[in-house]
Amino acid sequence: MFRLIVRHAPLMEPTVPARMPEKMSRDRAELDALLASTVLAHVALVDDDGAPVVIPTAAVAWGDRLLVHGSTGSRWMRRVAQGAPVAVSVAAIDGVVVARSAFESSLVYRSAVLRGRFTRLQGEDKESALDAVTERLLPGRTQEVRRSTRRELAATMLLAMPIESWTLRVSEGWPDDPDDDVAGPAWAGVVRLGTPPTSVHAAPDLRDDIGVPPSVGRITGVR
Amino acid sequence: MFRLIVRHAPLMEPTVPARMPEKMSRDRAELDALLASTVLAHVALVDDDGAPVVIPTAAVAWGDRLLVHGSTGSRWMRRVAQGAPVAVSVAAIDGVVVARSAFESSLVYRSAVLRGRFTRLQGEDKESALDAVTERLLPGRTQEVRRSTRRELAATMLLAMPIESWTLRVSEGWPDDPDDDVAGPAWAGVVRLGTPPTSVHAAPDLRDDIGVPPSVGRITGVR
Repeated sequence: MFRLIVRHAPLMEPTVPARMPEKMSRDRAELDALLASTVLAHVALVDDDGAPVVIPTAAVAWGDRLLVHGSTGSRWMRRVAQGAPVAVSVAAIDGVVVARSAFESSLVYRSAVLRGRFTRLQGEDKESALDAVTERLLPGRTQEVRRSTRRELAATMLLAMPIESWTLRVSEGWPDDPDDDVAGPAWAGVVRLGTPPTSVHAAPDLRDDIGVPPSVGRITGVR
Repeated sequence: MFRLIVRHAPLMEPTVPARMPEKMSRDRAELDALLASTVLAHVALVDDDGAPVVIPTAAVAWGDRLLVHGSTGSRWMRRVAQGAPVAVSVAAIDGVVVARSAFESSLVYRSAVLRGRFTRLQGEDKESALDAVTERLLPGRTQEVRRSTRRELAATMLLAMPIESWTLRVSEGWPDDPDDDVAGPAWAGVVRLGTPPTSVHAAPDLRDDIGVPPSVGRITGVR
């Protein structure tokens, strides 16, 4: 049917790319492009009782490390900071491959899974990494706002994982319909999703003399 | 810093909403709205060796069940079809809350985690569910294409999980800056992300006399 998996699998079989090796990428630039188009990552870990846990969170590439951040009170962050192994997925749907049958139809997607363990950053490393997160989400924002206070920094946990063990699948291309279907009446093609439009809304308590800053105009690729 | 977690947590602490109860929703309509705005889900499970696994895949609400589908050869699907417990996340980033400090800034998001076990559908139930998946991705498409063949159906696995145990967090609202920052020079507000524009590309082998069908014009909310 509307198969995403039989050949255009958006899933990551976690270790070996058994089914569609031609769709795998070892190109770090392609991984970076995916991380530049969305900040949404999903961290999977295993709970004390052996149950699977999945955590949606923002993740940002910082050189050869992947950053996540949150509250020092976060239970899952404390768990992974102690060395619990994780699998981190970053995935984007870029469109729909509309084949001449439901079965041959699929999604246009990019999907990365990174494996490893996070470690907690401290001191200057932590501050630099937090700036990198802010700059990723709002390019130039660190120059527009005050520095974080000591209290704010103390309330924030920052974790980094080496970008070493990862797999990337990229789905591309046209529908691949059998001849019988190509000869038939059904339409076929690809629908691509573009960049979502943004709308800017000033806070109700904003003073009239403060205009929209450059960083806000640069917001893109967070979805 | 650009905190997503201290208060506007996009993460799901998997059981009790300890930090921000006012952001939790028990409204099934809000869950359905999230499932209507994106098909991308992440399934977390635990591998034979106790390692966490995360699988991005398309998920579709079908009455009181969540559907995923794929190849009968898929390793993770076979594992969960045998009753392995899963946590399924569906999350969408809807914008950015731009506060007057990096620390108070956050994302506008909706985040659901469903827990349970999948079971495999067969027979008419399976065919109906597969139609539901196709209709979710391309509304009206089942009327535009041929029925699936017996071979295609045999190659497809369809799994359903009751939508029973779930949590939903919805982040909304304006930046909540301390008075000192409100009196300062920094801008504050919300940037909302809209629906991405679509571009339609006919397949190279499409006959000239076949026009774009209604289902393709209706593609939306798959990201």
